[in-house]
Amino acid sequence: MSSEQLRQLARQLLAGECDLEQFVSLAAIEAQASAAAEAATVDVDRAARCGFPEVIYGEGKSAAVIAAIARQLLEREQSVLATRVDAAKAAELQLAFAGLRYNETARTVRIDSPMAKPAGSRGSVAVISAGTTDLPVAEEARETLDWMGVETRLIQDVGVAGPHRLPARLAEFVSCDAIVVVAGMEGALPSVVGGHVACPIFAVPTSVGYGANFGGVAALLSMLNSCAANVAVVNIDAGFKAGYLAGIVATRATKS
Amino acid sequence: MSSEQLRQLARQLLAGECDLEQFVSLAAIEAQASAAAEAATVDVDRAARCGFPEVIYGEGKSAAVIAAIARQLLEREQSVLATRVDAAKAAELQLAFAGLRYNETARTVRIDSPMAKPAGSRGSVAVISAGTTDLPVAEEARETLDWMGVETRLIQDVGVAGPHRLPARLAEFVSCDAIVVVAGMEGALPSVVGGHVACPIFAVPTSVGYGANFGGVAALLSMLNSCAANVAVVNIDAGFKAGYLAGIVATRATKS
Amino acid sequence: MSSEQLRQLARQLLAGECDLEQFVSLAAIEAQASAAAEAATVDVDRAARCGFPEVIYGEGKSAAVIAAIARQLLEREQSVLATRVDAAKAAELQLAFAGLRYNETARTVRIDSPMAKPAGSRGSVAVISAGTTDLPVAEEARETLDWMGVETRLIQDVGVAGPHRLPARLAEFVSCDAIVVVAGMEGALPSVVGGHVACPIFAVPTSVGYGANFGGVAALLSMLNSCAANVAVVNIDAGFKAGYLAGIVATRATKS
Amino acid sequence: MSSEQLRQLARQLLAGECDLEQFVSLAAIEAQASAAAEAATVDVDRAARCGFPEVIYGEGKSAAVIAAIARQLLEREQSVLATRVDAAKAAELQLAFAGLRYNETARTVRIDSPMAKPAGSRGSVAVISAGTTDLPVAEEARETLDWMGVETRLIQDVGVAGPHRLPARLAEFVSCDAIVVVAGMEGALPSVVGGHVACPIFAVPTSVGYGANFGGVAALLSMLNSCAANVAVVNIDAGFKAGYLAGIVATRATKS
Amino acid sequence: MSSEQLRQLARQLLAGECDLEQFVSLAAIEAQASAAAEAATVDVDRAARCGFPEVIYGEGKSAAVIAAIARQLLEREQSVLATRVDAAKAAELQLAFAGLRYNETARTVRIDSPMAKPAGSRGSVAVISAGTTDLPVAEEARETLDWMGVETRLIQDVGVAGPHRLPARLAEFVSCDAIVVVAGMEGALPSVVGGHVACPIFAVPTSVGYGANFGGVAALLSMLNSCAANVAVVNIDAGFKAGYLAGIVATRATKS
Amino acid sequence: MSSEQLRQLARQLLAGECDLEQFVSLAAIEAQASAAAEAATVDVDRAARCGFPEVIYGEGKSAAVIAAIARQLLEREQSVLATRVDAAKAAELQLAFAGLRYNETARTVRIDSPMAKPAGSRGSVAVISAGTTDLPVAEEARETLDWMGVETRLIQDVGVAGPHRLPARLAEFVSCDAIVVVAGMEGALPSVVGGHVACPIFAVPTSVGYGANFGGVAALLSMLNSCAANVAVVNIDAGFKAGYLAGIVATRATKS
Amino acid sequence: MSSEQLRQLARQLLAGECDLEQFVSLAAIEAQASAAAEAATVDVDRAARCGFPEVIYGEGKSAAVIAAIARQLLEREQSVLATRVDAAKAAELQLAFAGLRYNETARTVRIDSPMAKPAGSRGSVAVISAGTTDLPVAEEARETLDWMGVETRLIQDVGVAGPHRLPARLAEFVSCDAIVVVAGMEGALPSVVGGHVACPIFAVPTSVGYGANFGGVAALLSMLNSCAANVAVVNIDAGFKAGYLAGIVATRATKS
Amino acid sequence: MSSEQLRQLARQLLAGECDLEQFVSLAAIEAQASAAAEAATVDVDRAARCGFPEVIYGEGKSAAVIAAIARQLLEREQSVLATRVDAAKAAELQLAFAGLRYNETARTVRIDSPMAKPAGSRGSVAVISAGTTDLPVAEEARETLDWMGVETRLIQDVGVAGPHRLPARLAEFVSCDAIVVVAGMEGALPSVVGGHVACPIFAVPTSVGYGANFGGVAALLSMLNSCAANVAVVNIDAGFKAGYLAGIVATRATKS
Repeated sequence: MSSEQLRQLARQLLAGECDLEQFVSLAAIEAQASAAAEAATVDVDRAARCGFPEVIYGEGKSAAVIAAIARQLLEREQSVLATRVDAAKAAELQLAFAGLRYNETARTVRIDSPMAKPAGSRGSVAVISAGTTDLPVAEEARETLDWMGVETRLIQDVGVAGPHRLPARLAEFVSCDAIVVVAGMEGALPSVVGGHVACPIFAVPTSVGYGANFGGVAALLSMLNSCAANVAVVNIDAGFKAGYLAGIVATRATKS
Repeated sequence: MSSEQLRQLARQLLAGECDLEQFVSLAAIEAQASAAAEAATVDVDRAARCGFPEVIYGEGKSAAVIAAIARQLLEREQSVLATRVDAAKAAELQLAFAGLRYNETARTVRIDSPMAKPAGSRGSVAVISAGTTDLPVAEEARETLDWMGVETRLIQDVGVAGPHRLPARLAEFVSCDAIVVVAGMEGALPSVVGGHVACPIFAVPTSVGYGANFGGVAALLSMLNSCAANVAVVNIDAGFKAGYLAGIVATRATKS
Repeated sequence: MSSEQLRQLARQLLAGECDLEQFVSLAAIEAQASAAAEAATVDVDRAARCGFPEVIYGEGKSAAVIAAIARQLLEREQSVLATRVDAAKAAELQLAFAGLRYNETARTVRIDSPMAKPAGSRGSVAVISAGTTDLPVAEEARETLDWMGVETRLIQDVGVAGPHRLPARLAEFVSCDAIVVVAGMEGALPSVVGGHVACPIFAVPTSVGYGANFGGVAALLSMLNSCAANVAVVNIDAGFKAGYLAGIVATRATKS
Repeated sequence: MSSEQLRQLARQLLAGECDLEQFVSLAAIEAQASAAAEAATVDVDRAARCGFPEVIYGEGKSAAVIAAIARQLLEREQSVLATRVDAAKAAELQLAFAGLRYNETARTVRIDSPMAKPAGSRGSVAVISAGTTDLPVAEEARETLDWMGVETRLIQDVGVAGPHRLPARLAEFVSCDAIVVVAGMEGALPSVVGGHVACPIFAVPTSVGYGANFGGVAALLSMLNSCAANVAVVNIDAGFKAGYLAGIVATRATKS
Repeated sequence: MSSEQLRQLARQLLAGECDLEQFVSLAAIEAQASAAAEAATVDVDRAARCGFPEVIYGEGKSAAVIAAIARQLLEREQSVLATRVDAAKAAELQLAFAGLRYNETARTVRIDSPMAKPAGSRGSVAVISAGTTDLPVAEEARETLDWMGVETRLIQDVGVAGPHRLPARLAEFVSCDAIVVVAGMEGALPSVVGGHVACPIFAVPTSVGYGANFGGVAALLSMLNSCAANVAVVNIDAGFKAGYLAGIVATRATKS
Repeated sequence: MSSEQLRQLARQLLAGECDLEQFVSLAAIEAQASAAAEAATVDVDRAARCGFPEVIYGEGKSAAVIAAIARQLLEREQSVLATRVDAAKAAELQLAFAGLRYNETARTVRIDSPMAKPAGSRGSVAVISAGTTDLPVAEEARETLDWMGVETRLIQDVGVAGPHRLPARLAEFVSCDAIVVVAGMEGALPSVVGGHVACPIFAVPTSVGYGANFGGVAALLSMLNSCAANVAVVNIDAGFKAGYLAGIVATRATKS
Repeated sequence: MSSEQLRQLARQLLAGECDLEQFVSLAAIEAQASAAAEAATVDVDRAARCGFPEVIYGEGKSAAVIAAIARQLLEREQSVLATRVDAAKAAELQLAFAGLRYNETARTVRIDSPMAKPAGSRGSVAVISAGTTDLPVAEEARETLDWMGVETRLIQDVGVAGPHRLPARLAEFVSCDAIVVVAGMEGALPSVVGGHVACPIFAVPTSVGYGANFGGVAALLSMLNSCAANVAVVNIDAGFKAGYLAGIVATRATKS
Repeated sequence: MSSEQLRQLARQLLAGECDLEQFVSLAAIEAQASAAAEAATVDVDRAARCGFPEVIYGEGKSAAVIAAIARQLLEREQSVLATRVDAAKAAELQLAFAGLRYNETARTVRIDSPMAKPAGSRGSVAVISAGTTDLPVAEEARETLDWMGVETRLIQDVGVAGPHRLPARLAEFVSCDAIVVVAGMEGALPSVVGGHVACPIFAVPTSVGYGANFGGVAALLSMLNSCAANVAVVNIDAGFKAGYLAGIVATRATKS
C-alpha cells in the first residue's frame, strides 16, 4: 500500500466516513491487494482482443485479490464486473470502492469506470426463466448483459406446465437478437421457446431441483438433446456465460 | 407332441397347406412346446387376480416356449399378447397358430381366444408420440390397449419444437381417461401435454437419439423431473407397461 | 399492504394476540406478499382445467411469496396445499393464516377455504411404506390425497425382508383404486405389492440409505425395472406427485 | 403415386435413363412417398417463422418418408437439407431427385430449389477441427452453413498438442462472425481458440476416441467447463446444430 | 509336441477316428499347447492351498492355451473346470480330450481326472433364478457346484411379481447350507429369499433386461442395498463366483 | 409408560442415581417408547426363523423407537444389537438400560439379555482392515461377530502398498472359517488376501478417500471385479452385513 | 509416555515455554502417541527400499497418531512429511515438535531430522497451475518436492484462455526434468504444456469448479484423453502424488 | 504420385514381385498418399522439440494417409511407429514399405529409417501384465519402448490372486528405471508392484473383463486411488502412452 493510499484512508477515518474497525480492515485489504497485484497477471489486453474487459470470477478469491484486479482494470478505464461474490466479501469491497453496486440475488459486483465510453445501442436480449427459484442465475445473466451495454428484459415464471403463460408473452421476446433461457427441473423450456423464434438461444440448466435432477444434470441433458436447432448450452448455473454469449451476438448484430 | 397333433400336421402337409420344410420345423416347435409346457409355470390365475391374463415377454424365449405358454392361456379361454417378438420367431409361430396377427413395427403377437367374452366399453386412451422414430414404442402401447379392449387413438409427430402442432390436436385427447406420451431426445413432451389435461399421463422415454442422449437416459431424467404433477414414468422403451397402466386406469374409470 | 390489513394487525397487537416482534415480522410478510402478488402469476384457472387447484412448491420460495399465492387461491375459494415448507417458514405463515395446519413430518401446509365445496366420495388409496425412515415421503403423499378428498390409509413397515408382514395386511389394500408405494434401499416393495393387486401402483423411491444407494438411485432403477406390469414411477422423494397421481385415478374411478 | 408420376418413370425406363430394377425401386419409393406425405406434417411455415426451412433429420426415416418431406419443401420453393442419411438411402433418393448432391463424409443430402432466391452476403464462419477423425462432424457443419448461404472455411488438424499449428492459422479465423470448433479426445481446442477471438464459439464434442472418452462425454464435459467466456456447447457429434447456430449468428451480424 | 503325441494322432487318423482336417487342426492345437505350456504358469499348488484346483477362465484364451493348462492340471490328478468357453473352442477341445463334457447353456467345459478321489458328502446348495433368461448364469453356478462335489438343486422362474410361486417351493431350499440367487431386472429376489432362510445367500445380478437396466447395474445396486442381512453380492453375470462361494460354505458346513 | 416404570424412575431420582434433567428426559423416552412400541412391528420370530434376533438399524430412528424395539427383544430373552447409533442417542439410551455398552468407534449399542443362553463355540473369523481410517467399519463388523458369539480377531493396517506386512500376519487368519476384509482407496486388499486362503471372504468397501474414489465406488468396483474366486461383496461401509455373513458361515461350519 | 518425557514437559511449563492448558493438551498427545506407537506399524524400511521415507497421510488420523508415526521416523533419522493436516491438528503438533513448519495453503507439516544427510543436487521440476484456486494442490506438490530435495519453481495463473501467458514463460520450464500441471475446470492445460516439452508431465485434476465439473471428474477425463503422449494422470487433488512422481523422475535423471 | 514412383511399381510388376491386383492397389495407395501428403501437416520438428518423432495414431486414418505421413518422417531420417493399425491396413502398407514389421497382437507398424542413428544405452523398463488377456496392451507398450531404443522385458501373468507369483520375479524388475503395469479386472497389480520398488510406475487399465468392470473403468478407478505413491495412470488400453512415458523417464535417467 502506498503512503498516499494510507493517507487517504486516515482522512476518511478522521472525517468519520469509516470507524476504526473499518479503517483497520480496509487498510488490511489495501495492503494485501498491493501484494496480490504483483502476483496476479491480469489479462489487460483482453478488451482490445475480445471486445470486453476481463471478468473477475470471485469464487475462491479473497476480497484483497478481487480488489487488486479491479484496480488494475479501473486504471485502464475499464468497468468492472465480478461474479460469484458472496455478501461478506462484497461488504469488504464496498469500503474500498465508492460507487460499487452489489446485486445480492445475482451475487455480482459492478464498479463503473467514469472514463468508460458510453456504449451506443447494442441490440436487445431477453432472459427467460422457468420458475422463481431460477432467479439468481437469470439475474447473473441480466447483470452481465447490462454491464455489456445490451438492452435486456427479464421474463419470469413461464414454465412449460402452465401452457398459457408463454404464448401470452411471445411479443416481448420474438424480435430479440438472442435469448437466454434459464431452467431447472426437466429443462424443457429452451426447446419450447426455440420453436417460436429465429434467433440463437443460450440455455442454462440450473441445479435447482431434487431427486433424479442430480444437481442440474437432468436439465443439462435435456437441453443438449433439444430438438430445436437454435439451442446452444452452457454449464450448469452458468448465468454469466450465457449472458456474455447472448451479449456478443447482440452487439455484433447491431454493430454493422 | 400328442399323436393327434402329429396327425393334424401330416394332414396339412398332404393338403399342401405347408411344404416339407415347414412340416419339419412345425413338428419341431410342437415337440419342444410339449416339453416346455411342463417346465414353464404359467401364472394362469392372473386374469382372476389382476383383471387381465399374463402377457408373454418374448425376448430371450424361443418360439417353442412362447407357443407352450400361449397354448396354456388359450386353453383357459384367454386371448394372448406377446411382446418383443422378432420377425423370425413370429413366422415360426404363424405356422402353429391360425389366427395369429403380427405387428412388425410394434413387434407384438396377438392370438384371440374365440371364447373370450367381448369387453364392454372400456374407456379411451390417447397415445401421443413426439417423432416418427418413436413409432415402434407407441405401437407397442397401442397394441396393448387394443388387446385390453380399450379404445385408443394414436397422435403422431407433435414434438415441442413445432409449437403450433400440439394445440391444433388438443381436442383429440383432452377428454381421454389416460394418456401415454412417448418421446426421445429431450423428453419434454409429457410436461407440455400434462399442462393441458386433468388425467394421468404415463410417459415413456425412448432410446432414440444420439450423443448425450445415452440410450434414453436424457429423456428419462427429463420426465422424472417434470414440473407437471400428473406425469408418471415407466422404463425406457417400455411401451407395453405404459399401455397397460393407461389401460387399467381407463377400465376402472368406466367400470363403475 | 393495504391500510386495512395494517389496521387489523394493529388490533391483534393491542388485543395481545401477538407480541411486538410478531407484529413487526407479520407486517413485513404482508408488505412483501403484496409486492410478490404482483410479480407471481398464479395459474388460477388450473382447477377448472385440471380438476384441482395449483399446489405451491415451497422450496426456494420465501414465506411472503407463499403467502401471496395462497391468498390468491383463497380468494378464488380454493383450498391451499403447499409442500416442502420447513418449520421456520411454517411458523411465519401460521401468524398470517388462522386455520393453517402444518404437518412437520410431511413438511406440508394446508389452509382450507371455507367456501370449498365438500367433495363427495372420491375413492380410496393405500399408501404403503417399506420402513420407518420412509415416513416423511409417505406422509407427503397422504396429505396430498387428503387435500384431494380421497380416503387414504397408511400402511407402514412392511419391508420385503420380513416376508410374513405384507400378506397379513393384504386385505387392507387389495380393493383400493390405486396404491402409492414408498421405499428406499433396494426398492423391491412395489414389485412385490404389484403382484398381488390389479390397480395401478405409483412407486416413490426415497433417498434414505447409504453406500451404493446413491441418494435413491438404486431404488429408482429397481422400480423402473420392475417386472410387475402395473408399476409406474415418480421422482426420488416425490411423495406429492405419487399422491396426486393416485388421487386423480381414484377420483376418476368413482366419478362416473 | 399419381399416374402422371408413373408415366414419367416409364418414359425414363424407355429412354434408358434407368434400368428395370431402378424403375421398380423408384416406383416403390414414389408410392410410399405419396402415402407418407399424408401422414407427415411438415412444418412448412418454419422458413417464415424462423428464417430457414425445416431440416430433415434422416436417422430412422425411410427414403420414402424423406422423399415425401423433401417434395413438400420443394413445392414451397425451399431448398432441402437432410442430415444423417446413409449411402444406401442416398442412392435411392438420387433416382428420385435430379440435382441431388450427397456428401458421403458428412452424410448430408442437398436438393436446391431452382426458385430459391440467391442469398446476399451472409457473413463468414470458420469450422475448425482438432484431428482428421473429426472430419465427418466438421463437414456436416460446413454443409449446413453452405445451405444457409454463409461463407465458410474449414481449418483442419490443429490439435492443441502441436502448439505451433493454431497461431499459424489465426489470421484465417480471427475476423469471422462465429466459429464452430469440433474436437474429440480431451476437447481442449474450443478453450484455446476462445482465448484468441471475440466472436461466439459453438463447440461440438465428438464421439471419436477410446478408453475413458465414453463416446464423447470427456470432450463434452471439458467444453462445458471451458474457462473461455465465449464458448457454448451443442450435443455430441451435433455438427448440424453447431453449423446452424453459427449460421444464424453470422446472418444476423451482416443483415442489418 | 512330442513325437509320441504325433504318433498317437496319426494312429487316430489311420483308425478313422478323425478325418484329415481334424488331424491337422488337432496337431496344431497340440503344437501350440506345448508352446503355451511353457509360457503359462499354472497355479498348481492351489488345490492344496485353497481346497480346490485352479479354474480356467476361458474368455480371451485360445483353445491351445486352455488345453495346455488343462493338461497340467490333469497331470496332477485334478479335475478340470473351464468357464466362458464358446461352442467353437469347445469343439476344438473335444478332439483333444476324450471325456470332455460341454454345457452349451452354461458355456462350461468339464474334464474329470480319473484319479480324482470321490468327494464325500459336501452339503447342499440351491440355485434359484428369477426368469428363464437368467438360466445361463444359473447353469454356470450349478456346473461349478457339481464340479466341487456339492449336491445342487435348480429352482427356476420364481420372480417376485408372481407372489404365489416362491412360498410354494420354500421346502426345497429352506434347509440348504447356502443359496445362489440369480436375477436381472429389478433384482428383488435375493431380498425376498433372504427373509425366509438363515443361511448365507450369494446374489448374482444378470445383464438381462432393457432400458434403465444398464447391463445389470440396476439389479446390482438393488442387491447391494438389500435390507436382508444375509445377502452378499458378486459381479454381474458371475455365476461361477457365486457357485464357488456357496460351494466352499457348504463344504465347510459339512466337513467337521 | 406404566406407573410402575414411573415409580422406578422416581426412585432413581430420589436415590440420586440421576439428576432432575436426566429424570425428565428419561421419562420422555419411556413415554415415547410406549407409544412407539405399539406402532413398530418387531420381527420377533426372526431368531427362530433365521438363527439370530432382529438387529436394529439406528439411522433415522429416535432413541424412543430404538428403546421400544429393544425392550420387545429383551422381553423375549434376546440380546440387543443396534447399529448406526450416534453418541447423543446412545447417551439417552444409557439412562434407560442399565448394562448398555456403547462402542463409539463402531457406533454400536449392545444390551445383553441375562436370559440369553451362552453360545457354544461358534467358529472364528478374522476382520482385516487396510488402513487406520477403515477402523469404524471394521469395528462394526467385529461387534456384530461378538454379539453372535463368534471368536474374532482384528488385524489392522495391512494395506497392499506395504508388501511385507500381510505375509507376516498370515498365520493369524489362514485357518479362520471366514474373513471380513475392510478397505477403501483402491480396494485391492480382498484380492490379495483371497489368494492366500481357502475360506469365503466378505469384502466391505469404505467411503474413505478423496478424488476419484466417489465415496467408495472405486473400492466397490475393484472388489466386484476381484480375480479371486472366494470374494463376495457387501454395500459400502456395510460392516454389520459383512460381519453377519461371516458369522453365519462360521456358526454353520462348527455347528455340525 | 515415559517419565522422562513428562519431566521435560514439566520443565517447559516451569520455564514458561508453555502455559498450563498447553501443558495438559501436550501431555495428552504424548500419552496417546505412546499408545498409538505400539498399534501403528510404520513402514520404517521404506527409505531403504523406495528411496524416500514413508509419508504420513493425515486425513482421518488424530494428532496423537501422527505424532507417534513422526517420532518413529525421526528416531530413524528420517525427515517427516505429513499431508492433509488441518490447522487445528497442526497447532497441536506444533507444541510437540520444536522445528515443525506448517504450510496452511498446502495443509502440509514438515519436521526435518537434524541427522538427515543433505541431498546433493536432485534435478529440477516445474509446478504449473491454471488458476489461483488451484494453488492449494500446487503447493502440496511443491512442498513434497522440497522435502525430497528437488529444486522447484511454481508458475501460476497460466490458464489456456489467456493464450499469451504460457509461451511467455516457456523458458522457465522447458528444460525441467519433469513437470507437475495442476488444473481444474476443463483441464486442458497439461495437453498444451505437453506439446512444448520433452519431459514427462504429471497432471493433477482439481475439484475446483461448479456445474458439470462434478468435483474434478471433467478435468480428470480431459487429462486421461490428452492427445499429448507425455501426460500421465494422478487422482483428483492428489498434489502429493504428482509431486512425488515428478521428484523420483528428477532424482533419477540426475543421479547417474 | 510421381512418374518415378510409377516406374518403380511397374518394374516390380514385371519382375513378378507383385501381381496385377497388388500393382493396382499399390498404385492407388501411392496416388492417395500424394494427395494426402499435402493435406496432412506432419509435426516434423517434433523430434527436435520433444526428443522423439511423431507417432502415427492409425485409428480412423486410411492406409493412404498413414503412408503419406510415414514417407514424410522417413524423408527426415526418422523411424516410423504407427499404433492401432488393423491387419487389413497393415497388409496394404506392407506392399508400399519394404522393411515394414507388423505386430498383430500389438497392432503396431514399425518402419526403421536406415539413416536413424543407433541409440546408445537408454535404460531399462519392465512391462508387467496381470493376465494373458492384457497382452495386446502390454505388447503395444513393449513395441513403443523398443522403437525408442529402450531395453525392455515383458513379465506376464502375475495377477494378485496368485500371491506366490510376483515375489518370485521381483529380481527381474526391481532395478528398472520405470515400470509399465497393465491390468484389467480389479486393477490391483500396480499398487502391489508399487510397494516393492522405488521407480515410477505407469499403470494402464484394460477394458478386459465383464459385469461391473464397465470397459475398464473399475480398473481405472482402482489405479487412480492407489495407495502407492509412485503410481501414475494413463487412459484405458493406452499401452502406447504408458510405454512412451516410461521410455522418456528411462532415457533421461541414463542420458546424463
